Amino acid sequence: MPQDRIRQESDMPSTAAPLPPAVDASAAPFMRTPDLSEPDTGRLRAAIRRYFLDTFDRYESLFQCLAGDEAYFVKPIPLRHPLIFYFGHTATFFVNKLMLTRLIDRRLDHRLESVFAVGVDEMSWDDLNDAHYDWPSVAEVRAYRGRVRALVLDLIDHAPLQSPIGWQNPWWAIVMGVEHERIHLETSSVLIRQHALKYVRSAPGWAPLPDAGGEPPANELVRVSAGTVRVGKAFDDPQYGWDNEYGSHVAQIESFEAGRYLVSNREYLAFVEAGGYRSHRDWTEEGRQWLDYSQAEHPTFWVKKTQGWFLRLMTEEIPMPWSWPVEVNYLEAKAFCNWMAAETGQPVRLPTEDEWYRLYDAAGLRDPGDQPCAANLHLDHGASSCPVDTWRHGDWYDVVGNVWQWTETPTYPFDGFDVHPIYDDFTTPTFDGRHNLIKGGSWIACGNEAVRASRYAFRRHFFQHAGFRYVVSHAPAEAPAAYYETDKLMSEYAEFHYGDSYFGVPSFPQTLARRAIEAMGERPRRRALDLGCASGRATFELARAFERVTGVDFSARFINQGVQLIQSGQLRYTLADEGELVSYKTRTLAELGLGEAAERVEFFQGDACNLKPQFTDYDLVLAANLIDRLYDPARFLDQIHERIVPGGLLLIASPYTWLEEHTPRASWLGGFKKDAENYTTLDGLKDHLAPHFQLLGAPEDVPFVIRETRRKFQHTLSELTIWERR
Amino acid sequence: MPQDRIRQESDMPSTAAPLPPAVDASAAPFMRTPDLSEPDTGRLRAAIRRYFLDTFDRYESLFQCLAGDEAYFVKPIPLRHPLIFYFGHTATFFVNKLMLTRLIDRRLDHRLESVFAVGVDEMSWDDLNDAHYDWPSVAEVRAYRGRVRALVLDLIDHAPLQSPIGWQNPWWAIVMGVEHERIHLETSSVLIRQHALKYVRSAPGWAPLPDAGGEPPANELVRVSAGTVRVGKAFDDPQYGWDNEYGSHVAQIESFEAGRYLVSNREYLAFVEAGGYRSHRDWTEEGRQWLDYSQAEHPTFWVKKTQGWFLRLMTEEIPMPWSWPVEVNYLEAKAFCNWMAAETGQPVRLPTEDEWYRLYDAAGLRDPGDQPCAANLHLDHGASSCPVDTWRHGDWYDVVGNVWQWTETPTYPFDGFDVHPIYDDFTTPTFDGRHNLIKGGSWIACGNEAVRASRYAFRRHFFQHAGFRYVVSHAPAEAPAAYYETDKLMSEYAEFHYGDSYFGVPSFPQTLARRAIEAMGERPRRRALDLGCASGRATFELARAFERVTGVDFSARFINQGVQLIQSGQLRYTLADEGELVSYKTRTLAELGLGEAAERVEFFQGDACNLKPQFTDYDLVLAANLIDRLYDPARFLDQIHERIVPGGLLLIASPYTWLEEHTPRASWLGGFKKDAENYTTLDGLKDHLAPHFQLLGAPEDVPFVIRETRRKFQHTLSELTIWERR
Repeated sequence: MPQDRIRQESDMPSTAAPLPPAVDASAAPFMRTPDLSEPDTGRLRAAIRRYFLDTFDRYESLFQCLAGDEAYFVKPIPLRHPLIFYFGHTATFFVNKLMLTRLIDRRLDHRLESVFAVGVDEMSWDDLNDAHYDWPSVAEVRAYRGRVRALVLDLIDHAPLQSPIGWQNPWWAIVMGVEHERIHLETSSVLIRQHALKYVRSAPGWAPLPDAGGEPPANELVRVSAGTVRVGKAFDDPQYGWDNEYGSHVAQIESFEAGRYLVSNREYLAFVEAGGYRSHRDWTEEGRQWLDYSQAEHPTFWVKKTQGWFLRLMTEEIPMPWSWPVEVNYLEAKAFCNWMAAETGQPVRLPTEDEWYRLYDAAGLRDPGDQPCAANLHLDHGASSCPVDTWRHGDWYDVVGNVWQWTETPTYPFDGFDVHPIYDDFTTPTFDGRHNLIKGGSWIACGNEAVRASRYAFRRHFFQHAGFRYVVSHAPAEAPAAYYETDKLMSEYAEFHYGDSYFGVPSFPQTLARRAIEAMGERPRRRALDLGCASGRATFELARAFERVTGVDFSARFINQGVQLIQSGQLRYTLADEGELVSYKTRTLAELGLGEAAERVEFFQGDACNLKPQFTDYDLVLAANLIDRLYDPARFLDQIHERIVPGGLLLIASPYTWLEEHTPRASWLGGFKKDAENYTTLDGLKDHLAPHFQLLGAPEDVPFVIRETRRKFQHTLSELTIWERR
Repeated sequence: MPQDRIRQESDMPSTAAPLPPAVDASAAPFMRTPDLSEPDTGRLRAAIRRYFLDTFDRYESLFQCLAGDEAYFVKPIPLRHPLIFYFGHTATFFVNKLMLTRLIDRRLDHRLESVFAVGVDEMSWDDLNDAHYDWPSVAEVRAYRGRVRALVLDLIDHAPLQSPIGWQNPWWAIVMGVEHERIHLETSSVLIRQHALKYVRSAPGWAPLPDAGGEPPANELVRVSAGTVRVGKAFDDPQYGWDNEYGSHVAQIESFEAGRYLVSNREYLAFVEAGGYRSHRDWTEEGRQWLDYSQAEHPTFWVKKTQGWFLRLMTEEIPMPWSWPVEVNYLEAKAFCNWMAAETGQPVRLPTEDEWYRLYDAAGLRDPGDQPCAANLHLDHGASSCPVDTWRHGDWYDVVGNVWQWTETPTYPFDGFDVHPIYDDFTTPTFDGRHNLIKGGSWIACGNEAVRASRYAFRRHFFQHAGFRYVVSHAPAEAPAAYYETDKLMSEYAEFHYGDSYFGVPSFPQTLARRAIEAMGERPRRRALDLGCASGRATFELARAFERVTGVDFSARFINQGVQLIQSGQLRYTLADEGELVSYKTRTLAELGLGEAAERVEFFQGDACNLKPQFTDYDLVLAANLIDRLYDPARFLDQIHERIVPGGLLLIASPYTWLEEHTPRASWLGGFKKDAENYTTLDGLKDHLAPHFQLLGAPEDVPFVIRETRRKFQHTLSELTIWERR
């Protein structure tokens, strides 16, 4: 990429965009996702009615592209169900969600609704699922769809309705069903595009755009100025959204350069011809694995014939439209960027999600209105891509529409994220670092898919009507923390430290920190050590009063929770509810009033029985639920005075639950007969600490509760003793 | 044993007893166990002072029987410590117990008090403990004893004292120390008797009785009339007692026949000469094992010399006094009885403890008073046995005194038993069915040992100054239930069902039974089934309202708890407190108001997924915390209607804690995604039960708490649903 092709945004020549293709003015544009805050319930009903019918009917029309019933039952690709499933699935989805919000109280058809409930797991290309399904006939499904259609229309016309339709409104299920069907409108169009040609046919309303274009313009880099990106919907936003769109996210974006055009088939051809698919050089490890599996030699919809390259569309193959955007998965797009970076020596990569938003804002775009989009979007212009220089957006083209654009960003939840109660696994399973966000929508992306707020993510090997725009930036593309702690112990402790209280028992780490601060009295509060800090709540709580607090734990996994809280201010974890069912939880330091205290906190991995020298000179050491988990508690007790300043305090809290798996029997501090008499752990504490400490006051019980499931808890009494260093 | 030797009690010729041997009138009798309710604290102090000195000094005088210091350090028998240990041990015991009641707050000598704290475990003859001990010198121990003596005397003279001295009085530790030393006075005398002759010597006050007697009279059986035995001390009894003497026990004793005399050496010789020790025929299995181990050929204190049989006493051997009682362990005594039974065809055996008490009462005996005993007891007459026809008691001789008498009865706790807080393992470890009670005391038994209430038990192979009296009775000698449940799960459930409530959570099985009875309303209450009854509390609780209640559980161990409650009315178990420390607990049906209900209860082992045909025709089935422990819960749900009458109720309570170890994942009722939606166990219950049941009312939470240790609990919410059989 020659350097002279890079221009500043401000250098952009103010050329007019080419004329858009002709639009069928006789048809109103495919309806936009409606305003759910419409206060007039009559109008609101009408809008929902139209939105439902528009979608339900358009979805059925898509299946007219299938050439006969057999096409419904043969799988287009081995990793997905045959199309008969998707024909029924979007109808069943309505029933399932309506059941959950209790708009209906009985199913229409138990058998069909079981058959159509769950798609094949397309999560991994090596997960070939050949389970046998006894599919119903097309006629049967069409009849079933008719019954669902009547059911939903009846509800829309007669069910009680209160405006607005928010998350808790039972009608949310109806809108969710419509938006869900719009997603499948696109994914089914991709499956049809993947079907053998003999199974497809042209159908009214699904013709590709006629403009195959000529040669695309040479791509060039245009500078995007630095700026602040703000995204995240409020929970009372008047438009429908999927859970991962809510909350808030703010990012400062450095200036970067972005390709003026999406990468065209022509531009991509250079990579193919350079042997990009034959060499592993430019591919990520994941990309190489996919290449080995797929044996791909070019983009999936490219067809090499003796007469040259063709492109597979939904229902036909056409001579390669070189000026249309190339359609690839993330792995191919990334390989292209790496190849280009190697060729040019520039830091070429895909944009992050935030960079795409910066580009969107810089291009001055807005969500689709009632007029046809000035973009190849929302089915407003036809059923295919168009040349990459058709729709200009600011200094760029196709910032939205034409094809989706892969980003570097694995999807993640915004601050304030919460799952929707009737669809708690829409996005949460994708918070795994393996699903990358695609932005901007394609020619068929509509409804929620076509708005700025939308956030869809797919496995990186997945095909959609998706391509990419490259950017050049020295800023690394960092993956935001999307991790949900799912390990049983770790998430139980996250809840134990930061979650709800149960049985009216107040927060244990908070109580201990409060007792510690009280006990300090007039003593200096410079440095505190929370030894065996686990998830770190007491460490943060101590920092309300101490200048510096160190949390130390033997487990790096626990330390990571504290570090994550310092870095991101939040902790995400799943809670086991019943069997395999979980709920999703996010806790932030801010909501606990600990945002400021976090600045005085640090966490280290360490061994309480063998502390590193730097952990010393403390005014307070807290050892909460620690001593009965040490392999050598006596050693800890006999040495801890070296870490505490004279007059400083040692707080020990423990339920004295001695277990051989943690502490060899010979190393227990108490809880056995010694010299024929009961020798308690408190006796052991006194004997070991007497040389350097004085016990202040009487031992006290501090209860704590650890939630194991929605119904099962550990309820324990820890004994707190406070010792003053002589 | 010819039949003509059996006489009725009433036939007993009213002959006068032979003259007792001369008593040294210059010495007051060895002090009796004092009245601890003496209201004048001056007098009470004086009595305790005298009792302490009398004992402490007499104990030291016993060690004058050792010939030089070496005798202290060579073990008389391999299974016990050398005598230096016992010399120090009784002093250390004072210190240990005084620490526990806080009469003192520091030890005299940490090292010695550790060395002298714990005796060698003499529980098993094959447990040879050769641990190395670095014993202190005799002079050192003597000096230590002097310090303890001064310490205790100082306390007796100056420590605050409130009368009476009961269990909770800190002075109880002093009296316990004295009584403990009196026990060791006897056991040490046995060890001295087992020492090699070269290590012993005669000592003032420890001479044997001079009356070696001639031939004993022929033994004969005397009928003991039927009667009621009442034993068990009140907790405010004015005399000291060990924990197992308290509570109450009442037994109806059938008439039986008892030997007029203890079995003499002469009488026992017939068994030895008949080859009793060479044949295994008459020995119990345990007796045979002991015989193989010990290679015994005759009683342990018999010495066979060329000039004939001799008897080893404490410090000398004498020609066999044939009229003295033979001294044997239980196993030998039992073998003699079996041999005699075989010879005579009569049901000869040892007496039970209750039969001994009946004999005691029939003989009209009372506890020792201030006058010398009319029995060879309490060191009142000399330091050895005497002829078996010396001391007449009613129609018998030596009902108390001379030598202890083995019984058939393994020791057990009376109703109302409780451990003493400063000595919780005095008797509890002997409630194992392997320690048999000895009764009546020996010539050296004194203090508490010499009173009717005393209850000492030893391993059956153990030697004491002990022999036996045989009885003839057709009544079996049943072993009372002494079993303490110590298995973790079993004792946790015993407490869960019958024990205390924690965190204010009321009894779970009681609550379920109450809810079941409420829900029954006006329905007939004939038959109820408690399926998965565990320890059976709900089974008993249901029997408050139902005519017949059956408890069924898969676990025989649980069923045994219910059966034991029906049979004995009580359940004994240990509670884990901290580490290895436990507390002891007894619960009775009577104190729960269930004594009468038990008559309508039965327990069976059974499989809820495969119930036997007879478990049917129930008005109520309760399945509490059952379904998530079944291997096939669906099968249970799909079939349970066959067991319930139309209109009857099924109560299901469960926390839905599905675990692979109990229920294969494929058999869970819920707690997973089904057809893409959350499918709870309640959904599963509804689907399975719908064909035959109707859900009554809303599900409700019923909490329960299971205590794991003093500080650690499971706190769980079980969901209760009530279903009516159509």
